[in-house]
Amino acid sequence: MAERIAGYDYGTDAVAVSPVTQDDLQLLKAATMFSDEDEQYLRKAGEILKDQVDQILDLWYGWVASQPHLVYYFTGPDGQPDARYLQAVRHRFGQWILDTCLRPYDQDWLNYAHEIGLRHHRTKKNQTDQVASVPHIPLRYLIAFIYPIGMTIRSFLEKKAESPEELDKMHQAWLKSVVLQVALWSYPYAKEGDW
Amino acid sequence: MAERIAGYDYGTDAVAVSPVTQDDLQLLKAATMFSDEDEQYLRKAGEILKDQVDQILDLWYGWVASQPHLVYYFTGPDGQPDARYLQAVRHRFGQWILDTCLRPYDQDWLNYAHEIGLRHHRTKKNQTDQVASVPHIPLRYLIAFIYPIGMTIRSFLEKKAESPEELDKMHQAWLKSVVLQVALWSYPYAKEGDW
Repeated sequence: MAERIAGYDYGTDAVAVSPVTQDDLQLLKAATMFSDEDEQYLRKAGEILKDQVDQILDLWYGWVASQPHLVYYFTGPDGQPDARYLQAVRHRFGQWILDTCLRPYDQDWLNYAHEIGLRHHRTKKNQTDQVASVPHIPLRYLIAFIYPIGMTIRSFLEKKAESPEELDKMHQAWLKSVVLQVALWSYPYAKEGDW
Repeated sequence: MAERIAGYDYGTDAVAVSPVTQDDLQLLKAATMFSDEDEQYLRKAGEILKDQVDQILDLWYGWVASQPHLVYYFTGPDGQPDARYLQAVRHRFGQWILDTCLRPYDQDWLNYAHEIGLRHHRTKKNQTDQVASVPHIPLRYLIAFIYPIGMTIRSFLEKKAESPEELDKMHQAWLKSVVLQVALWSYPYAKEGDW
């Protein structure tokens, strides 16, 4: 976290204000079964994942790169993947892994979750990195990614988990958080009053 | 399946036509890592779950009933849960467990998935059962439910799985399918062109 990550505006005025309140968040947490215990296991997960961020991103980026209909959302006007865009997003994606595990889910976190949604949605896609890529990532892929992002983390947690029980609890906490965050990111996609 | 389930219009003209094509579905399956092998494991899961549908629904209904902000979506004008509505949905919910495991994901299945989305959304909520409940289930709770519905099935699969490996594969196939279906159900919630 020593180096400034371009476009990583966490906790600053550059980030949108989330329309979601802490009360909404508590109810949403309950609907994903997310508890205080999960928060504790996310802290442990963060300690394990923080040294493996590059390997995790290699796996995720490799998987996306293998599917033309997914890498499409990183392509430029020439139809080729925009390497600068991929790289800029990668730095923030790595930081997101850490934030998921180590940040308190307070108003700054809610605001940045909302900002992440906007940056996938046509409202703000491409703006942060000033790229000329396709204008929008569809809602269905945001939801679909719950599985790969939620599940592939397990092998990285496994490397340093102290017991099968701890592994499982860290992994469940991660999966709940991913579901919770995709629910938050979906806000700009929903029709007025539908979210 | 011998008895007709009220409002269960699978494969009939009473069901909406999905705007999602088989090509879209294949790409969405790929984004959730859903493969032919998952289809096979869902068949096995169906054989295990079909005798436990009532117990599964008891668990899910008990969990929803314990959370006022969730049972709210089943309440009538008097603010009390509508027992007839809960019961009518329950029959179809049980059938959904079987359909998830045992039906081919063809056009009829896609159409009914779209219908399920409409019945959660303000477009068609309450109509099937002719009830006067709250008009809409928010998108965020549809997404949030991926976790409880996706994960609590494991203990039921565990009872008759032949090996830990088979249990895991059945469970992963189930979770992928739940993610896939919530992505399909989200269609009516999205702004024009955002899905």
